[in-house]
Amino acid sequence: MPKVLVMHGPNLNLLGTREPEIYGHTTMQDINEMLQKRGREAGITVDCYQSNHEGDLVDRLQAANHQYDYIIFNAGAYTHYSIAIRDAIAAIEVPVIEVHISNIHQREEFRHTSVLAPVALGQICGLGIESYLAALEAVIYKLGLHK
Amino acid sequence: MPKVLVMHGPNLNLLGTREPEIYGHTTMQDINEMLQKRGREAGITVDCYQSNHEGDLVDRLQAANHQYDYIIFNAGAYTHYSIAIRDAIAAIEVPVIEVHISNIHQREEFRHTSVLAPVALGQICGLGIESYLAALEAVIYKLGLHK
Amino acid sequence: MPKVLVMHGPNLNLLGTREPEIYGHTTMQDINEMLQKRGREAGITVDCYQSNHEGDLVDRLQAANHQYDYIIFNAGAYTHYSIAIRDAIAAIEVPVIEVHISNIHQREEFRHTSVLAPVALGQICGLGIESYLAALEAVIYKLGLHK
Amino acid sequence: MPKVLVMHGPNLNLLGTREPEIYGHTTMQDINEMLQKRGREAGITVDCYQSNHEGDLVDRLQAANHQYDYIIFNAGAYTHYSIAIRDAIAAIEVPVIEVHISNIHQREEFRHTSVLAPVALGQICGLGIESYLAALEAVIYKLGLHK
Amino acid sequence: MPKVLVMHGPNLNLLGTREPEIYGHTTMQDINEMLQKRGREAGITVDCYQSNHEGDLVDRLQAANHQYDYIIFNAGAYTHYSIAIRDAIAAIEVPVIEVHISNIHQREEFRHTSVLAPVALGQICGLGIESYLAALEAVIYKLGLHK
Amino acid sequence: MPKVLVMHGPNLNLLGTREPEIYGHTTMQDINEMLQKRGREAGITVDCYQSNHEGDLVDRLQAANHQYDYIIFNAGAYTHYSIAIRDAIAAIEVPVIEVHISNIHQREEFRHTSVLAPVALGQICGLGIESYLAALEAVIYKLGLHK
Amino acid sequence: MPKVLVMHGPNLNLLGTREPEIYGHTTMQDINEMLQKRGREAGITVDCYQSNHEGDLVDRLQAANHQYDYIIFNAGAYTHYSIAIRDAIAAIEVPVIEVHISNIHQREEFRHTSVLAPVALGQICGLGIESYLAALEAVIYKLGLHK
Amino acid sequence: MPKVLVMHGPNLNLLGTREPEIYGHTTMQDINEMLQKRGREAGITVDCYQSNHEGDLVDRLQAANHQYDYIIFNAGAYTHYSIAIRDAIAAIEVPVIEVHISNIHQREEFRHTSVLAPVALGQICGLGIESYLAALEAVIYKLGLHK
Amino acid sequence: MPKVLVMHGPNLNLLGTREPEIYGHTTMQDINEMLQKRGREAGITVDCYQSNHEGDLVDRLQAANHQYDYIIFNAGAYTHYSIAIRDAIAAIEVPVIEVHISNIHQREEFRHTSVLAPVALGQICGLGIESYLAALEAVIYKLGLHK
Amino acid sequence: MPKVLVMHGPNLNLLGTREPEIYGHTTMQDINEMLQKRGREAGITVDCYQSNHEGDLVDRLQAANHQYDYIIFNAGAYTHYSIAIRDAIAAIEVPVIEVHISNIHQREEFRHTSVLAPVALGQICGLGIESYLAALEAVIYKLGLHK
Amino acid sequence: MPKVLVMHGPNLNLLGTREPEIYGHTTMQDINEMLQKRGREAGITVDCYQSNHEGDLVDRLQAANHQYDYIIFNAGAYTHYSIAIRDAIAAIEVPVIEVHISNIHQREEFRHTSVLAPVALGQICGLGIESYLAALEAVIYKLGLHK
Amino acid sequence: MPKVLVMHGPNLNLLGTREPEIYGHTTMQDINEMLQKRGREAGITVDCYQSNHEGDLVDRLQAANHQYDYIIFNAGAYTHYSIAIRDAIAAIEVPVIEVHISNIHQREEFRHTSVLAPVALGQICGLGIESYLAALEAVIYKLGLHK
Repeated sequence: MPKVLVMHGPNLNLLGTREPEIYGHTTMQDINEMLQKRGREAGITVDCYQSNHEGDLVDRLQAANHQYDYIIFNAGAYTHYSIAIRDAIAAIEVPVIEVHISNIHQREEFRHTSVLAPVALGQICGLGIESYLAALEAVIYKLGLHK
Repeated sequence: MPKVLVMHGPNLNLLGTREPEIYGHTTMQDINEMLQKRGREAGITVDCYQSNHEGDLVDRLQAANHQYDYIIFNAGAYTHYSIAIRDAIAAIEVPVIEVHISNIHQREEFRHTSVLAPVALGQICGLGIESYLAALEAVIYKLGLHK
Repeated sequence: MPKVLVMHGPNLNLLGTREPEIYGHTTMQDINEMLQKRGREAGITVDCYQSNHEGDLVDRLQAANHQYDYIIFNAGAYTHYSIAIRDAIAAIEVPVIEVHISNIHQREEFRHTSVLAPVALGQICGLGIESYLAALEAVIYKLGLHK
Repeated sequence: MPKVLVMHGPNLNLLGTREPEIYGHTTMQDINEMLQKRGREAGITVDCYQSNHEGDLVDRLQAANHQYDYIIFNAGAYTHYSIAIRDAIAAIEVPVIEVHISNIHQREEFRHTSVLAPVALGQICGLGIESYLAALEAVIYKLGLHK
Repeated sequence: MPKVLVMHGPNLNLLGTREPEIYGHTTMQDINEMLQKRGREAGITVDCYQSNHEGDLVDRLQAANHQYDYIIFNAGAYTHYSIAIRDAIAAIEVPVIEVHISNIHQREEFRHTSVLAPVALGQICGLGIESYLAALEAVIYKLGLHK
Repeated sequence: MPKVLVMHGPNLNLLGTREPEIYGHTTMQDINEMLQKRGREAGITVDCYQSNHEGDLVDRLQAANHQYDYIIFNAGAYTHYSIAIRDAIAAIEVPVIEVHISNIHQREEFRHTSVLAPVALGQICGLGIESYLAALEAVIYKLGLHK
Repeated sequence: MPKVLVMHGPNLNLLGTREPEIYGHTTMQDINEMLQKRGREAGITVDCYQSNHEGDLVDRLQAANHQYDYIIFNAGAYTHYSIAIRDAIAAIEVPVIEVHISNIHQREEFRHTSVLAPVALGQICGLGIESYLAALEAVIYKLGLHK
Repeated sequence: MPKVLVMHGPNLNLLGTREPEIYGHTTMQDINEMLQKRGREAGITVDCYQSNHEGDLVDRLQAANHQYDYIIFNAGAYTHYSIAIRDAIAAIEVPVIEVHISNIHQREEFRHTSVLAPVALGQICGLGIESYLAALEAVIYKLGLHK
Repeated sequence: MPKVLVMHGPNLNLLGTREPEIYGHTTMQDINEMLQKRGREAGITVDCYQSNHEGDLVDRLQAANHQYDYIIFNAGAYTHYSIAIRDAIAAIEVPVIEVHISNIHQREEFRHTSVLAPVALGQICGLGIESYLAALEAVIYKLGLHK
Repeated sequence: MPKVLVMHGPNLNLLGTREPEIYGHTTMQDINEMLQKRGREAGITVDCYQSNHEGDLVDRLQAANHQYDYIIFNAGAYTHYSIAIRDAIAAIEVPVIEVHISNIHQREEFRHTSVLAPVALGQICGLGIESYLAALEAVIYKLGLHK
Repeated sequence: MPKVLVMHGPNLNLLGTREPEIYGHTTMQDINEMLQKRGREAGITVDCYQSNHEGDLVDRLQAANHQYDYIIFNAGAYTHYSIAIRDAIAAIEVPVIEVHISNIHQREEFRHTSVLAPVALGQICGLGIESYLAALEAVIYKLGLHK
Repeated sequence: MPKVLVMHGPNLNLLGTREPEIYGHTTMQDINEMLQKRGREAGITVDCYQSNHEGDLVDRLQAANHQYDYIIFNAGAYTHYSIAIRDAIAAIEVPVIEVHISNIHQREEFRHTSVLAPVALGQICGLGIESYLAALEAVIYKLGLHK
């Protein structure tokens, strides 16, 4: 049975309470449940992980190697400067789809650049929680599980 | 019945023949058919349009106002400099999802920046033809048509 | 009888409906009529033209050579990148006054620069529809028709 | 009776003698008289002021608050770096129209940027002394005094 | 009783031993005691925290939400690049005053920029250990506790 | 008896009326009085000065040499470009604490840089009128007058 | 019989009349005839095309695929920003030699950069109409037709 | 007996498996053993440490103060942005030799800059695992232990 | 009898007391006297002027027109940003030799650029008070008064 | 009889052996012979020169003044930084055509800029050894020797 | 018997006398002798060469091709701009190890960049004369001569 | 008897013939004679040297150490990029005065920067041949030989 790891970076544990005018009221737990529900329908195991610690995210990526078919990763603030995470993504064989809830191109200049994008498979942003769902749908298509 | 307009910019009519190591062998017509098939399943009319002419794309966007629920737009090269298209997107009320087949962040420096992204709803790139499909799935979720 | 050509670039045909908090509610047609009315008073023929197509605007500028005394030109988005239009302005002998309804210096960074301005006679921006009228008044003064 | 203040910044007192190939032979006094004459016709009091001192121009702007309907201001060299004048313009309620005799976009790079423009109502440049006249005409239109 | 959290970032645990020509000989413990003493006088509880780990500082900021009235934060090196900490500051409702012992504007170029400052309430630097004390005095004024 | 000079740069004489959403409603006179009151309590003479003229501020700084123990200076717009004032600060022996009412890092890009900061003792910004008070408290600590 | 397509971009139809101090008095028609004459001598069919429209040039390049052995292309102003044309050149298999009549390195800064050059076979500039002729001679050598 | 600490930053624990075309097939354990063997020959104790966590690396550097004669440090991705690690290096008295297996100047632009180099004793890169060995040889020379 | 005006900008009145490690112990009065003595020998009247006020320096330059043969001008801090002074120099016919006591290229980055130099006759820096004397000697040569 | 000097800069003596994937297998001697053969046909004397020394190339350019009708110059690496060679080209009256075998716009960023191009007559690049031949053909046309 | 060429660029002949606070008191001759002694021990011939002339260094590199196993090269000032030397390194097959005595990252900005590094095998800097020795040790390891 | 070395860099041997609108008609020999004549009057030996070769100029500077009291150096084009010459100037103890005939700040952007100036004693430019004479006069003053 295919496996997908959903990873959330720093401050995403506050989702639903932090700056709701940007991120909405859905919590991280809500997102995880939607993704797991959709995964079950499609025949995919969906695991979820969150940390505020860059090193933990690097450790988790390394541990995911050969254990997952895809990673859906919202790296939060680390998106914009964590070359350590970038190197971990490049070092493993699992393709990573980078997602963002908000449209990072409508926000501060420094959020327009992702240091992860060049080593990710692709990037989805600005669609709200549908960014995660669209990533999962893409995985479902790529795994030939779309009916 | 909800309507979605799929727009393709310059040189996408060559898809499947042009630089297949970047873009793959699927043709634009193949993509249009996949999207229309998926649209029909979900109860959405999907119209498609392609032009190499910036002015035509501006005209088409203007004409789409109040006629469509969403636009899925791969603006090709114009993504990176057509402020005229940007202004047309901003001028209409239909939300636009920007898509790219390739991961623009792995290519030439000038392709890393989209002048359209700040006025688009969101952006999907790098997932191959699944970029278009993921955009359509997001629309389906947003329209509440996902089952 | 002196002749003035008023040219409008992309998306200005939407004036009055597009982003009215920036551009107001007056339509392009309203502006054309005001300018033609004021032209008639001063003894000047005022012709008007709009296109969303860069190539059409180049063609129109070329055709205007030796046919008009002045051109009043709001090139819209093309202001910021169309070197083709710049070259057309430089190639003809009719002096061009660049106008903008909004204050381009209060908007996005990329709108602060006009690639046309260095080859235009001058530039007027930020005065609302009075930007066009002020340009026409300047022409009237320059033609010695102010009473 | 509406009142307009015309302000001239540093070295404009030399107008007509300084670099006439750029600025022409009309003196500042000539300009003031033209503007006052046109003002009288339209029913507007036009006052004029010149100083080479940045602090004096700040003082004059502050004093103009609630005393004038519009200010027409050619800040000369201070246009390009005087944030003190910018702040004074922003601090008062009188709208300011920035004018330049020459086309600042055809001159040295540093003259292409105005630190005042983002807080001015608008900007007119490159029309020769008609830059001032066009500004006054715009004011006349805005005050509804154009006949 | 109002509560203030004092946070120290990486390497500040070495204060008094590290580069004393820049930072002086007072230790972090000395500073904490001065602040706690002054807090007691003014009727404020002052808690202190130090970590070299970015993730710990993010966690601590999150945990401080709704628990403190103000945070006085010397983020050390993270000041200049930790967008994760920036986002945590923005995500909580406790106002944060950024402090630095040395004058960051007299040091290396990269220390002139704080990525935290735009989301902090304000910033104090260069006053030595009085930077912390001045921050606490400001809090005392803002809480109306100055006598 | 120790002496402190409080200096205010251009447009600060308008405080309380100018852009109150940024600067609040307290006037410069109110601030001066608060500082003088607090000075008297602590046993410090506080003198105050304001000018819109860069040259006057340079003159005043030169005259303050050997006459004051500290200068608290809000240089307003000159903060960002007056190298003449910077040189005057460097030329005298009185330490200068730079203050700003607003958080300059939340405003326009050009306000993020202070040309004075590298020669000032330190900088306080963003705390409202408490920026001045915190500076005075720091002086009181440095003079050993805090009780 | 080998075939060469000569393409001219915007405003080159004005050649001989536009800015003759830069471009000389030879018309585009003259150039085409010289090239066709030289082509006939060498046994090459030379076709010619001009348009002011970016989209037309893209269409023409696409249509030229598999129809020509070489393209000699003076893209005029589009040289400096048309990524759409660049992509069309990259998408076809016909090698393109970029030519310019004037020495683009002696003109405005923005003319020093060609977005087409990285995908062209090579570039010739500054030799006047001999830029076209030298390109044709290079083609003749490459086709082994030089005698 | 002199002591050397060898430190490895993020993802170096994957050495030998990660991107072997860049880093080769030798594992971190292999390197540590080679260094310890050479150390024993020369009469030096060599300790080794690896972490993916920036904070751990800061902690380890602080703990190494006064315990080691030299540190040989491959900081991996943190080389390029960790000012916290830079400050820790500057704060301790043990000289640090920065090493890289690959030639960082042949890779992505951002890898050309080390924020650690200005506070390190020196830097060695591009020699493969011999980068570590060369660093150890330099230490042996500096300690006068080369025979 | 030829006349030379020596002008000193802001803070040069402090010469001999301000930062003597950069500027030495000679006072401005000493320099003036040396120049006047050397002028007398060569048959030249030397007048001297100092101000901290940008506007005063502009006024003085304007007043010097047609009154002096050469101006030797150390504009101090205004060298680096006063376009008002630059315009005054350009507006008058008296050639200006820019001088600096210190080597501005060995100091802060912003002192490396003079906005006056492009409109001055030439520039002398770094020779100490001999910068002024060398300028005067150059004038003497140019006036044919060297014996 | 007209004379042309062909000059080759540093490392071009290795042509045919150095990086053949970029420069091909033809040697410099082969190129010289082709050019001399074509020159003889057209009635032109072709001399050739190579040096790795910047100073030698400057000397040779100076010596060529009034001795040659045209210079065809591949300055190799010096193209990108030798202002000494640029000045020598500008100082002599012989027009210089700059050539490059490879397409410099497809290589490292620093090779995109030629400091020689602004003073050369024109530039040819990317055509392989036909770059030299095309330059010679252009000379033949310009000398009216094409038959 | 393996052969190593040690090359020294401009001003290194002054070593031991020039700026000893940066470079120490060891002369170039001392370094050469140490390297030759260590080479003899390891069974390697070490030749040495110095020149102040860029062209000579290019010539020497070309001549070294196929004659040496490794080159250890301190190119001095040419490190930072000599693309001619860079091209010579790229053109030969002998691997080059770039060395610097001082830590170039602690010095002027322009010394932080080496134009040679991207074509060198690797780079060693900041270790004093041990930079050369460490390079030689790396060669010894790579040749399998370390015992 | 004091000794001064006058050095001229590349293309200055063409002085009087090269671009006389910038450099005038005086030859290098004329300048040398004027300086030697003035030197004799003041009791100074003046030697002169010219080369187009960077390496020769480095050699000459090295040889001048301890042999001359001052060097007056017009390094021509090398001024703008020769770090080798810069290092030679820094390596010797003879103070160097940099001179330029033309005003380098009125010419191309790249001529505004001198890489030599930060290590020279000072710089004189724009005074024509009087730049050399003014430098010599400064030397005469500094040697106490002015009468």
